Amino acid sequence: MNLILLFPSDFVPGTTRAVLSGRRHTHVRAIHRASAGDVLVVGCADGRTGEGRIFSLTDRELVIDVALAAEPPSKIPVVLAVALMRPPVFRRVLQTAAAMGVSAIHVFNSCRVEKSFWQSTALDEADIRDQLILGLEQARDTLIPAVTFHKRFRPFAQDVLPGLLNGRCGIVADPSGGLLGLPAPGPKVLLIGPEGGFIPDELDAFRLAGCSVAGLGPRILRVETAVAAFLSRLL
Amino acid sequence: MNLILLFPSDFVPGTTRAVLSGRRHTHVRAIHRASAGDVLVVGCADGRTGEGRIFSLTDRELVIDVALAAEPPSKIPVVLAVALMRPPVFRRVLQTAAAMGVSAIHVFNSCRVEKSFWQSTALDEADIRDQLILGLEQARDTLIPAVTFHKRFRPFAQDVLPGLLNGRCGIVADPSGGLLGLPAPGPKVLLIGPEGGFIPDELDAFRLAGCSVAGLGPRILRVETAVAAFLSRLL
Repeated sequence: MNLILLFPSDFVPGTTRAVLSGRRHTHVRAIHRASAGDVLVVGCADGRTGEGRIFSLTDRELVIDVALAAEPPSKIPVVLAVALMRPPVFRRVLQTAAAMGVSAIHVFNSCRVEKSFWQSTALDEADIRDQLILGLEQARDTLIPAVTFHKRFRPFAQDVLPGLLNGRCGIVADPSGGLLGLPAPGPKVLLIGPEGGFIPDELDAFRLAGCSVAGLGPRILRVETAVAAFLSRLL
Repeated sequence: MNLILLFPSDFVPGTTRAVLSGRRHTHVRAIHRASAGDVLVVGCADGRTGEGRIFSLTDRELVIDVALAAEPPSKIPVVLAVALMRPPVFRRVLQTAAAMGVSAIHVFNSCRVEKSFWQSTALDEADIRDQLILGLEQARDTLIPAVTFHKRFRPFAQDVLPGLLNGRCGIVADPSGGLLGLPAPGPKVLLIGPEGGFIPDELDAFRLAGCSVAGLGPRILRVETAVAAFLSRLL
């Protein structure tokens, strides 16, 4: 937690004083080992970043006085579209994507996605938000990425993707493609497949929509590794 | 497990037949759902890759007839040097580094490494080997990276690192550096710090040894994300 993310409900109404209990309070006590007078890096969800000076820290709550003056780091110009994956992997991917500065995440179905994944609690709105917040706290960002689900592949590839590609260059991560160079600057859509990869029909649908296929060599990477590795080359 | 890694002890002596039980047997039954006659991707530890045709698969063991004709994928020309980290993170980093094709991993102490990490069972030879094997199986590689520990920072930075940098370009991953471009091809040493980063004295020691400092923008990444993201730009 390199930044403590604050929400409107944390504030004493009409003041710049925030009162925290639960996870953030525990973290500041146990990990930061902070005490009254110390200054913490804070940020307001979907707002500015700044400092929170500790007014008091007891075993019940953390009280900080907040001054927000800085803008959060810029988002990277990448929309991430991933096939749904196993719930623990999905949670890590949400964290990684948020930490690396993706502004929007689309999650779609594909042939090699197990149907049961769609019933996972990892898709609950609160669970998703928790993972995104962990990523933002890691990277000192405050802007919560939008996450959108597409339970059917064809409508995603044929109806949604063309809209996303309007003004953005589409790159499909697949070992069948040549090594992804550092592409020209500008907005991108990065598509990443499920464990086992896309099937040829799906790759064809993406090509038809105007995407190019690119890889990172012959090695098959885990989805969470691929997300970090491909995003890194689009910075 | 995109490749089943085999060891000399798996083989019926003097034959190309291997008999597996335990994790690999369970995986082929439960995940591959394979049966007699099916062909699996296999490789011999530190040797070639090829096919294993299933002779029999019972609830006790898997018997395959192995033909090895292909070379494993080339290693990437990167030596990875990381400060020791929390044990679960260390395990994931070993997997990721092995999967991405690093040939050697050096693990060193640094100011912000908690001393207790050096007592973890994650540093046991068998535990390390297990993680490396998971990474190789993921990436269809067979060549087990060498892992070396350096319990004191100064001797590592002053005595070991200059040797590693002989014929290799040294890059220290740190947010204080400018954005890492795609460097010229050739062997590299990539140095990645602990959670909390390197201290200025450590960065100075690396610079003195001839390394340059480079980052991936203002965001603070988790160590495992940083490993994948920096390695990706050195492919």
